Amino acid sequence: MNLFCALVFFSPNIFGQSASDSKDSLLIRSLYDDVLLNGQAYENLRTLTKDIGHRLSGSESAGKAMQWGAEVMRSYGADNVSIMPVMVPHWTRGSVANATARWGDGQEKALHITALGGSVGTDPSSTLQAGVTVVKQLAELKDLPSDQTQGRIVLFNRPMDPVQINTGSAYGGAYDQRGNGASAAAAVGARGALVRSLTHALDTLPHTGAMRYQEEIDRIPAAAISTVDAAWLAKAIEQFPDLTVQLELDCQAFDDVEQGNVIGTWYGTELPNEIITLGGHLDSWDIGEGAHDDGAGVVHTLEVLRVLKAIGYQPRRTLRFVLFINEENGNRGGITYAEKAKEEMEESDWVHVAALESDAGGFVPRGFRIDASDEVTNLMRSWTDLFDPYNIHQFKRGGAGVDISPLKELTPRPTLVGLSPDGQRYFDFHHSAQDVFENVHKRELELGAATFAAAVMMLDQHLPSPTN
Amino acid sequence: MNLFCALVFFSPNIFGQSASDSKDSLLIRSLYDDVLLNGQAYENLRTLTKDIGHRLSGSESAGKAMQWGAEVMRSYGADNVSIMPVMVPHWTRGSVANATARWGDGQEKALHITALGGSVGTDPSSTLQAGVTVVKQLAELKDLPSDQTQGRIVLFNRPMDPVQINTGSAYGGAYDQRGNGASAAAAVGARGALVRSLTHALDTLPHTGAMRYQEEIDRIPAAAISTVDAAWLAKAIEQFPDLTVQLELDCQAFDDVEQGNVIGTWYGTELPNEIITLGGHLDSWDIGEGAHDDGAGVVHTLEVLRVLKAIGYQPRRTLRFVLFINEENGNRGGITYAEKAKEEMEESDWVHVAALESDAGGFVPRGFRIDASDEVTNLMRSWTDLFDPYNIHQFKRGGAGVDISPLKELTPRPTLVGLSPDGQRYFDFHHSAQDVFENVHKRELELGAATFAAAVMMLDQHLPSPTN
Repeated sequence: MNLFCALVFFSPNIFGQSASDSKDSLLIRSLYDDVLLNGQAYENLRTLTKDIGHRLSGSESAGKAMQWGAEVMRSYGADNVSIMPVMVPHWTRGSVANATARWGDGQEKALHITALGGSVGTDPSSTLQAGVTVVKQLAELKDLPSDQTQGRIVLFNRPMDPVQINTGSAYGGAYDQRGNGASAAAAVGARGALVRSLTHALDTLPHTGAMRYQEEIDRIPAAAISTVDAAWLAKAIEQFPDLTVQLELDCQAFDDVEQGNVIGTWYGTELPNEIITLGGHLDSWDIGEGAHDDGAGVVHTLEVLRVLKAIGYQPRRTLRFVLFINEENGNRGGITYAEKAKEEMEESDWVHVAALESDAGGFVPRGFRIDASDEVTNLMRSWTDLFDPYNIHQFKRGGAGVDISPLKELTPRPTLVGLSPDGQRYFDFHHSAQDVFENVHKRELELGAATFAAAVMMLDQHLPSPTN
Repeated sequence: MNLFCALVFFSPNIFGQSASDSKDSLLIRSLYDDVLLNGQAYENLRTLTKDIGHRLSGSESAGKAMQWGAEVMRSYGADNVSIMPVMVPHWTRGSVANATARWGDGQEKALHITALGGSVGTDPSSTLQAGVTVVKQLAELKDLPSDQTQGRIVLFNRPMDPVQINTGSAYGGAYDQRGNGASAAAAVGARGALVRSLTHALDTLPHTGAMRYQEEIDRIPAAAISTVDAAWLAKAIEQFPDLTVQLELDCQAFDDVEQGNVIGTWYGTELPNEIITLGGHLDSWDIGEGAHDDGAGVVHTLEVLRVLKAIGYQPRRTLRFVLFINEENGNRGGITYAEKAKEEMEESDWVHVAALESDAGGFVPRGFRIDASDEVTNLMRSWTDLFDPYNIHQFKRGGAGVDISPLKELTPRPTLVGLSPDGQRYFDFHHSAQDVFENVHKRELELGAATFAAAVMMLDQHLPSPTN
């Protein structure tokens, strides 16, 4: 007997759930239909990216985006909308990001770089020009002779692994270079760090992103360098041993400022004390327009509110629509939200039963990343047939999202779910000047919004209530 | 008990096939690894689209593409490579495709149009300028008063249905306007036809494609008009009742010419008389570069040969790599191939057991369209777990591909399988000037090639031999 027959004959679910399945199936169809016919996600994304622009935490435009997000939530009929204050870092890239390679008899070449987020600038009173040491692993540094590290610039040049199908995993596998490279280089006496951009694309775009300095190690300037320039530089150094790079960055850190999470609430009818949170992050890097990261998640979240109202849905639980601040360089929005959620649960009968996040781009949706109990994971996997008509097939365990991850600390632990769009193109744009509205596809964005809405609806309908 | 447990406890396949699964799983992994590390599909596509260019049947460049395809097959080590002669239509678009709307006191606007493939040109000795009648369905025409049809230009303006998730189905649902609109309009006395481009995109690109004239009805010129211009024209006609359109096309049909299918053979070791065909089509429309349609299928096919050789695979069956000619405007390549296959089966002990096609673009693969017996369909569906790590989840029944569809007439009927990439972006480019190399994504193209190779390998290993 083949697998297909086994399914038909032995699974009680296929027949047992048909009435509820049929109601769910109609609801899901109406969500997709309305988003594809009347969706506002694409025009909202145009407003967010083109009228407001990029939105680094602490910037004026991040503040404008908060106001805009609150207004849209009100216009869509949230029961109330408020800002949860969050103190966020205030770092500016500045206007100077130069790296010039020099060799031989006066030859030089400008490299495409940009500061990593959080980097110190170069000292304006002295020139940082040094020979370059290339490594692929941070661990190589401590085995190098000191003349290969002292006073030099280190180029971290390990590409993202191309054979990993999941580009997010390939990103995770190369991330240490950006996150920790500068301090690892400074620990062995280096004066600067260049990090190969975290993308599979071979192009001249530098991709920024957060870096961290380790305590008690000198803070040296760190920049992302495009993949094409990283490859060129690694080769050129072998060919021209006298090659040096001069590095100049004028980024700066200022005191923290108050911004906040934008929160819209829609009270539930049957279980109003059970809260389902859904959101994306409003802040973005300050190059490009933060269109995929995470303008898409922001407009997905707003669209869920719009479409559930449009089809006349009445949520059983209380839905909280959250536009988080500061995911990119501190996650203070997510951390603050979880702290407040803990207080709410201690001080009232409210309980956070689930949180969903869209922060993986506006590409065609493939499914979900689920961080939940076996019971809830299996419940979601039983929805396969309901989602199959929409080409939604992934119900994988794994990281649901950075903003909602601090909610793991709550007791009882809420179900966490991340929308999982196709990731093959994501790192072409991620944290670069090409993360712009034009690189988001209208139907793909809309399908993501409808899928996100369907997941929220299904969890609202079927998630078991906590038993403790 | 939930569905997940049912699967684990009741399906004999899960444990029963583990040894074979494990060998298959390693083979599949090595195919993906090699394509992602050493793949030549992207550079082959660059050559095909940039050095050779578009390749309409009967054109010189289609002939060049045949020679190129044969050379690549030889360089990849096919046992033999030959051209199967096929007589193909020879139609040229010409250089004139003008449609000018005129209204009021000398106002005019040029519309973005291009001839539909196979259309006659306008009569150079007289001007075709006429009022425009807008319909959404062909059936509306026969109910219109004759002053709304006689001597007029008909605009077919039904958009592709946006709520269909499968864009191919939405295309199929709007296709009659392009395929049959001109004759339906001529039957009620119209002098010209404009067809809203078959795409969800709202832009100014006309999308060409084949049209057919019905016997014994006047042949009137027919052009595709961009979606933006179609929408404008439909509105403008309501606003300006005196609006006319002047239409000018200089396309032309010539006598058929001989071109052919490029066929590379790799003899099987265990069942050499059983043939598995795989292919894409070498011809393309003559605007753009035929990059997705069907340069992708061509380089997918070549890449399967390359990668199976690269990993040291020995096929059990005989593999036939076919670059079909004339899919776009006649399918003479596919028809001829099936005729020859029938002869081979009658005149020898050869049997065509399966045929696979890639003709749905170079986008990220989602799975397969299967046209096969229940037994083989269920066999392929039992591969779900093997393909899941590569995000391949669709094992749907349906049209496997135009080139291989005439093979359905063989007895015994071969298994037909189409590679099914994500279709959300396909019709943005399809048959338009934007179907160019730059709009194909390297990794997505490669994942398609690896998926195609894995399907060929799995069918070669596991397809039951015909029993008659």
